[in-house]
Amino acid sequence: MITTPSNGATPRSAGQDSAESQSGQPQSQKLWGGRFAEATASSVEAFTASIHYDSRLYKYDIEGSRAHAAMLQRQGVLSADELSAILIGLGAIEEEIDKGEFTFRQELEDVHMNIEKALVEKIGPAGAKLHSGRSRNDQIAVDLKMYLRDECDRFAHLLAETQKACVVLAREYLGKIMPGYTHMQRAQPVLISHHMLAYYEMFGRDRERILDCRKRMNLSPLGGAAMAGTGLPINRQDVAEALGFDGVTRNSMDSSGDRDFAIEFVSCCALIQNHLSRLSEELVLWSSQEFSFVIIADTFCTGSSIMPQKKNPDIPEIIRGKSGRVTGSLMTLLTLMKGLPMTYNRDLQEDKEPVFDAVDTVSASLAIMSELLGNLQFNTETMDRATRTGFMTATDLADYLVMKNVPFREAHGIVGRAVAACLEKGCELEDLSIAELQQFSAAIDEDVYEVLTVEGSVNSRVSQGGTATIRVEEAVTEAENQLKRVL
Amino acid sequence: MITTPSNGATPRSAGQDSAESQSGQPQSQKLWGGRFAEATASSVEAFTASIHYDSRLYKYDIEGSRAHAAMLQRQGVLSADELSAILIGLGAIEEEIDKGEFTFRQELEDVHMNIEKALVEKIGPAGAKLHSGRSRNDQIAVDLKMYLRDECDRFAHLLAETQKACVVLAREYLGKIMPGYTHMQRAQPVLISHHMLAYYEMFGRDRERILDCRKRMNLSPLGGAAMAGTGLPINRQDVAEALGFDGVTRNSMDSSGDRDFAIEFVSCCALIQNHLSRLSEELVLWSSQEFSFVIIADTFCTGSSIMPQKKNPDIPEIIRGKSGRVTGSLMTLLTLMKGLPMTYNRDLQEDKEPVFDAVDTVSASLAIMSELLGNLQFNTETMDRATRTGFMTATDLADYLVMKNVPFREAHGIVGRAVAACLEKGCELEDLSIAELQQFSAAIDEDVYEVLTVEGSVNSRVSQGGTATIRVEEAVTEAENQLKRVL
Amino acid sequence: MITTPSNGATPRSAGQDSAESQSGQPQSQKLWGGRFAEATASSVEAFTASIHYDSRLYKYDIEGSRAHAAMLQRQGVLSADELSAILIGLGAIEEEIDKGEFTFRQELEDVHMNIEKALVEKIGPAGAKLHSGRSRNDQIAVDLKMYLRDECDRFAHLLAETQKACVVLAREYLGKIMPGYTHMQRAQPVLISHHMLAYYEMFGRDRERILDCRKRMNLSPLGGAAMAGTGLPINRQDVAEALGFDGVTRNSMDSSGDRDFAIEFVSCCALIQNHLSRLSEELVLWSSQEFSFVIIADTFCTGSSIMPQKKNPDIPEIIRGKSGRVTGSLMTLLTLMKGLPMTYNRDLQEDKEPVFDAVDTVSASLAIMSELLGNLQFNTETMDRATRTGFMTATDLADYLVMKNVPFREAHGIVGRAVAACLEKGCELEDLSIAELQQFSAAIDEDVYEVLTVEGSVNSRVSQGGTATIRVEEAVTEAENQLKRVL
Amino acid sequence: MITTPSNGATPRSAGQDSAESQSGQPQSQKLWGGRFAEATASSVEAFTASIHYDSRLYKYDIEGSRAHAAMLQRQGVLSADELSAILIGLGAIEEEIDKGEFTFRQELEDVHMNIEKALVEKIGPAGAKLHSGRSRNDQIAVDLKMYLRDECDRFAHLLAETQKACVVLAREYLGKIMPGYTHMQRAQPVLISHHMLAYYEMFGRDRERILDCRKRMNLSPLGGAAMAGTGLPINRQDVAEALGFDGVTRNSMDSSGDRDFAIEFVSCCALIQNHLSRLSEELVLWSSQEFSFVIIADTFCTGSSIMPQKKNPDIPEIIRGKSGRVTGSLMTLLTLMKGLPMTYNRDLQEDKEPVFDAVDTVSASLAIMSELLGNLQFNTETMDRATRTGFMTATDLADYLVMKNVPFREAHGIVGRAVAACLEKGCELEDLSIAELQQFSAAIDEDVYEVLTVEGSVNSRVSQGGTATIRVEEAVTEAENQLKRVL
Repeated sequence: MITTPSNGATPRSAGQDSAESQSGQPQSQKLWGGRFAEATASSVEAFTASIHYDSRLYKYDIEGSRAHAAMLQRQGVLSADELSAILIGLGAIEEEIDKGEFTFRQELEDVHMNIEKALVEKIGPAGAKLHSGRSRNDQIAVDLKMYLRDECDRFAHLLAETQKACVVLAREYLGKIMPGYTHMQRAQPVLISHHMLAYYEMFGRDRERILDCRKRMNLSPLGGAAMAGTGLPINRQDVAEALGFDGVTRNSMDSSGDRDFAIEFVSCCALIQNHLSRLSEELVLWSSQEFSFVIIADTFCTGSSIMPQKKNPDIPEIIRGKSGRVTGSLMTLLTLMKGLPMTYNRDLQEDKEPVFDAVDTVSASLAIMSELLGNLQFNTETMDRATRTGFMTATDLADYLVMKNVPFREAHGIVGRAVAACLEKGCELEDLSIAELQQFSAAIDEDVYEVLTVEGSVNSRVSQGGTATIRVEEAVTEAENQLKRVL
Repeated sequence: MITTPSNGATPRSAGQDSAESQSGQPQSQKLWGGRFAEATASSVEAFTASIHYDSRLYKYDIEGSRAHAAMLQRQGVLSADELSAILIGLGAIEEEIDKGEFTFRQELEDVHMNIEKALVEKIGPAGAKLHSGRSRNDQIAVDLKMYLRDECDRFAHLLAETQKACVVLAREYLGKIMPGYTHMQRAQPVLISHHMLAYYEMFGRDRERILDCRKRMNLSPLGGAAMAGTGLPINRQDVAEALGFDGVTRNSMDSSGDRDFAIEFVSCCALIQNHLSRLSEELVLWSSQEFSFVIIADTFCTGSSIMPQKKNPDIPEIIRGKSGRVTGSLMTLLTLMKGLPMTYNRDLQEDKEPVFDAVDTVSASLAIMSELLGNLQFNTETMDRATRTGFMTATDLADYLVMKNVPFREAHGIVGRAVAACLEKGCELEDLSIAELQQFSAAIDEDVYEVLTVEGSVNSRVSQGGTATIRVEEAVTEAENQLKRVL
Repeated sequence: MITTPSNGATPRSAGQDSAESQSGQPQSQKLWGGRFAEATASSVEAFTASIHYDSRLYKYDIEGSRAHAAMLQRQGVLSADELSAILIGLGAIEEEIDKGEFTFRQELEDVHMNIEKALVEKIGPAGAKLHSGRSRNDQIAVDLKMYLRDECDRFAHLLAETQKACVVLAREYLGKIMPGYTHMQRAQPVLISHHMLAYYEMFGRDRERILDCRKRMNLSPLGGAAMAGTGLPINRQDVAEALGFDGVTRNSMDSSGDRDFAIEFVSCCALIQNHLSRLSEELVLWSSQEFSFVIIADTFCTGSSIMPQKKNPDIPEIIRGKSGRVTGSLMTLLTLMKGLPMTYNRDLQEDKEPVFDAVDTVSASLAIMSELLGNLQFNTETMDRATRTGFMTATDLADYLVMKNVPFREAHGIVGRAVAACLEKGCELEDLSIAELQQFSAAIDEDVYEVLTVEGSVNSRVSQGGTATIRVEEAVTEAENQLKRVL
Repeated sequence: MITTPSNGATPRSAGQDSAESQSGQPQSQKLWGGRFAEATASSVEAFTASIHYDSRLYKYDIEGSRAHAAMLQRQGVLSADELSAILIGLGAIEEEIDKGEFTFRQELEDVHMNIEKALVEKIGPAGAKLHSGRSRNDQIAVDLKMYLRDECDRFAHLLAETQKACVVLAREYLGKIMPGYTHMQRAQPVLISHHMLAYYEMFGRDRERILDCRKRMNLSPLGGAAMAGTGLPINRQDVAEALGFDGVTRNSMDSSGDRDFAIEFVSCCALIQNHLSRLSEELVLWSSQEFSFVIIADTFCTGSSIMPQKKNPDIPEIIRGKSGRVTGSLMTLLTLMKGLPMTYNRDLQEDKEPVFDAVDTVSASLAIMSELLGNLQFNTETMDRATRTGFMTATDLADYLVMKNVPFREAHGIVGRAVAACLEKGCELEDLSIAELQQFSAAIDEDVYEVLTVEGSVNSRVSQGGTATIRVEEAVTEAENQLKRVL
């Protein structure tokens, strides 16, 4: 005999267990309320409702319902008339929402229930048939996947636009030189274009990642129903095709509690915003009086309420700051899913706001960054001048010695001592006479001065992916061609 | 002669550096726009504006302005008439905002500029004097501190309310027994009240932490101005007192870039929500058919759109899920501040949304949890029955042996073997005859059956903080007395 | 004339700027020390060294050096004799490290310098030539990529093993029924096998993600040198092929500061451990006395030092706990990279420990989870019994009504009211007589009892991905076939 | 009749539920193994052991055992001889561990069991009595609290040392001027000392936070036993006093699962490292050729393996990078505790590594930062020169106008326009003639040139906490006095 009472049930011999409150509250009017003796408290409605943010998914919800209804009709669950009524009803609701004339009601909890209730009010019993063979559990999964799939496409485009802004600058400033840095120390002279193309690569990887994410998420969960599948004669493949999915998910329980696609998407977002934070940091530094490498157009800066002379690089600062936000959203989702048993748990409702926030933050940041790069000017003279100090061709001198058969480590030591001597004298390497240079190594000859020039240095780095103008020009052209294929 | 051009400046011999765009755009109309040749792009306005969320601080902004103005008058910077005009103007603006009749404008960026502009429009030149000796940098810091100070007080109250809900249950169910768990395995019988008082302790520490945080943040940054202090004859102490601060901050540069108080506050929030997630986990488990330890009132549950029999513990699920959100906000803030040079950077603008979200999430969760606990019923019979299996008095048998001078480790081994024998036989320890028991240890005597009862076990644990009824009753009374002092 | 002094340099007219300390310390003996007047402080060596953890990469470092040397020889930078000496030297060093006979020295900072120094000591000048055309910046990037590439392969295998453990259980228990849960409430009966296959799907996605990550990272950065490329006549493609890379990276600056591959890898890890935490949570719950769904073999549990009767599910608890660790490592990496300007910054050194920790944590967790699943037993009778209460066929009744042309929403309400009546009576739906059932809907007929059985319910869910035995059996077979291809 | 089988038990009528494996493995030899039929798998031992890191706590574990034993004797549970044997045994074990002669064994799991087992081996039965009235659950809590309490004290000292390093620089460079920045734009001239004292404030708040954390954690959990308290006649207060606790915890269940103190401690750590990351960022920037504000001594820098001229600010870079690590540890702990039911769960074992890592990371970073600051030199001429451009006295001109009764907003606009004119002319404000200046406002008089000097600007900012030399000198003195009290 079973002694464990069912959840929340009033057991037969109630005793202390039984005191189900007789509050005299009205019975539940919810769509799911048949079993409930009391109505939901209004504080509970306010706390649990998601309509204030998931209404954003209405188009996907309606599109999913259309496909579901059409399938139900083909499978004989709905008549042609019922389908027709449903499609007309959904069309009218969509139009109302589009126009801002639809009232979302908190007590109806979410976008699904709001639309379904409105449908029933509009078209009667046929509307009440739409929910056959599906559940809000698979419905929200399909809505969110369709939404994110579109966002993947939009992100791929935005990333390409940002890549393009980098390439446009790379083309425009081809041949212009700037200091390359490691450890924020001037290291070797490079082309401005080479620097900008590094970001082209980063955003390119981001694009690939987003497209991999899209590919992986594009399987329809619809038809998983609550979590066990359904006994109604549905056709999942059919609906999946109608909605542009590549196929259907393979396990109904997995589908109902799966948010991998959201986490993977926000992981991609975190990395994009991280890349943007690096570019922004450079723009902030380059805008400082100390660097003075760039001018950001007045239209893209703001001033100070107290210091009349200020012109602040707000855009890159805010973009940099927003990297915290996207990383935070990723943290939110990972914490959210930690330790959740199968299948759907209401916790999952908390997935949408971090996803939406990541979408909005990253897409706005990419868009404004592209715009800003289009309004950026490099102070090429200043940048060039900066390469003339700091012994930036020291590595070239070492490589020169290597080619004269001095082992690299020895060559490195020779140049290091020459640099120390220059620091002592307060001059640069090329300021040393040949006699002075030869004191450090007999392998040095008159031809050394060629490698000590900044231009010589840059253009000597002809290794694949190197900063020599010839290499960078190839890279710019390749990038332009790649972008032509996607923009 | 200085060759580094000032930020964004058009240097004299412009060349490639100089092409400041002559876009024909209108000049900036911003309050800070004197130095700007071009107006801000509207995409930039949209991206950089914070008014859509910082308008929430308007009451604090106005209160701060009142105190600042009063001080400026006392210091002779404003005349009595000017002060009077400012106070009337601010009062009118506050009323408009209160009534929802004030239009916040995105192009005015933030709450400070929106109010200041409105003030100037209302009262003319006197309004333009209000910003003397302060900057938006110290203004936002003071607004945010005053806001969070109030939230600390509210949180302390909400925590006490949640503590009270625990104590009320502890009082109501005093003497009722449930299984205590470690590793989710039944371990030792405890009082339900003892279990609830554990949460009383957690929320009590949260309260202390919030009050420490309040104490540390309660120093006025106002008068730090942009970041260097000011030469105008202000009186910081005076303003601080008027605004209820305990004193003033000691370094203007620190004040301008400090968000420690926000991070500390959100750290406290993360821990509170973490505690709530633990309590929620237990409520979800206890609501399961397998445990059936509690009944959450219908008013605090929702149903399923597809499964008519379901009654779901949505509230604790959502609270548990929201722990991700608060942890995410903390992550956001820590990432945000990482590596920022002094003093104010625009990144700091990104501090407010995670703070607001943490405030709203945690306060709503605490409030609804208190309510829910007030609508919770324990199935005491079921809970009691659950203590009757699983050898929950095994430790008592070991302690019994210790008191008979058997070394604890030996006693532990004896009981372990007795349990193994019971598992083999399918019975509990108290089902063994004295002869059977003595096979495991000659030290066992007839009096052993007293320690093998669940009630005996519970009430034997009289150590300080233990679960004996006498101890728990003292603890309930102490808790009630503590709460009387703060509620 | 340029007035900005070079980095840290003593300018000519020194004044207060000039006091370079004359500490009498010995000059630097570092491989990079030519330019340095003073030796590194030992506290600095201790703080900056990475050899205590990056020595783990020695095999990859040596393999990379072999390929680099062979290329240098083909390109004429090294003679055949020099190459031969280098290969012999590297071989000897590798053997010493393999055998634990190599002493890594902290003052040599990292794995690269330790090996290079040993090589020079062993073979003289030829060793000093090995560093031509590369830098530690590209060397560490290539080491780490080769390491992680191998780990991707190992992870793909470990994931397949874990998938297999799920499938083995699914095959073994095919046809056995358990309650399916949503919100931790009994929802609909499902097959145990169906439940286990849900995890098969999760780990399958993890596998795909890891392989995408591998594909994206498999481009050789070697030859990017410090960050600008090199002027020495190297052949990057050649080295890349020798090391099994699919190609070379396209931008030397990007390559030098890129850690995307590490972040993407750890993102994958975080999701794997998150999935493991969910499975672990279920194992912990199922091991509780309340569920009693599984027996974890004694060999996979531990006891209590105080409570002799305890048998604790430590393995899943620890795995669940470790999800925090992997998520933490991901946060570490994202924070690390935030706002770093190009190209290499020493901060990047901090990338390795979180990566290693994620590798170790996740691989150990996967391995022990596979083992544990192989030592897991389901209490099928208990699980089956649990499906007999809680109105688990309520949805079937609703679907039955839908097939009798009752609109779903109406059907849902009818069943809800029937459930409420059963709660009142303390019975299950199938305990109601046909007359009682018909009071709720005239559409109900004698055939209703077929759909109210648990077996009928399960086997009716024949939709794709549903829990009907026929569907699950197909899924098991498909999974077995998939695994045959990869294991 | 009880139908729920006990955990993992073989129920009487076993059927499919019963197949407890008969593997012929030896029975468990663990201290807790009495109830176990099979020995732990060695892979399980390796996965679950914590001895490789918790051995670090041995001194605290032994100290706790001493106090516990002494109390047991006073309470009559141990004889005087037994106590004496225990103290001698523990002393011998401590000495062995101190000398590195003790072998920790993985199969004994943790520090508690290793020491207890050794004690029993040394002194026989008396050792086996030590565990009376306590459990590893309260033992680890007390060890970790005592450890962290000591670390709080050490951290308070390290923070004071770092504060002192800031104050020493502030005293040394008193009167020297540098640009103050907002948005990385030169904003207003400030004293170097003022800038350094801002960090004094940050580390001061960190110190207070750590001391609050210490205060809150300093309650002894010992005597909570497994989680329900104990029936043995222990005296918790007595042990607490002996161990230097301020009192005892109030609820045994709370104590057993509480890790608030660890989370709070690591929260403090995250903020400290965050502050260090900000200081480090500035040191990296200031070391760049563009700023050239500081010289970090050679002993505190390293070079490049490829670029002979490089001198890199590795220390601040690594410190900055390590902020990711500490933030990651905090995220680890918060994720770890999320959703854990009461009381002790094995997940908690995962708390120690992030705590140890945070302790090691932050303490090493503070120590090396103090050292580095002591080896730092400001290029005061360069810094002073940098204040001479960029219109850094523009705010002073605005304040001047305010004092001449021009409303601030109007004054701000006047100065903005004057700045724009200077940009056009390529000069600074003080280069404008009085006639030129008066074109912008008739309120300007000859005395304006006094406020336009950098020195005038700095010294005018006499508001509390402002940058005027008189204020900063007071602040330095106050700081010196504060530190005298704590160092």
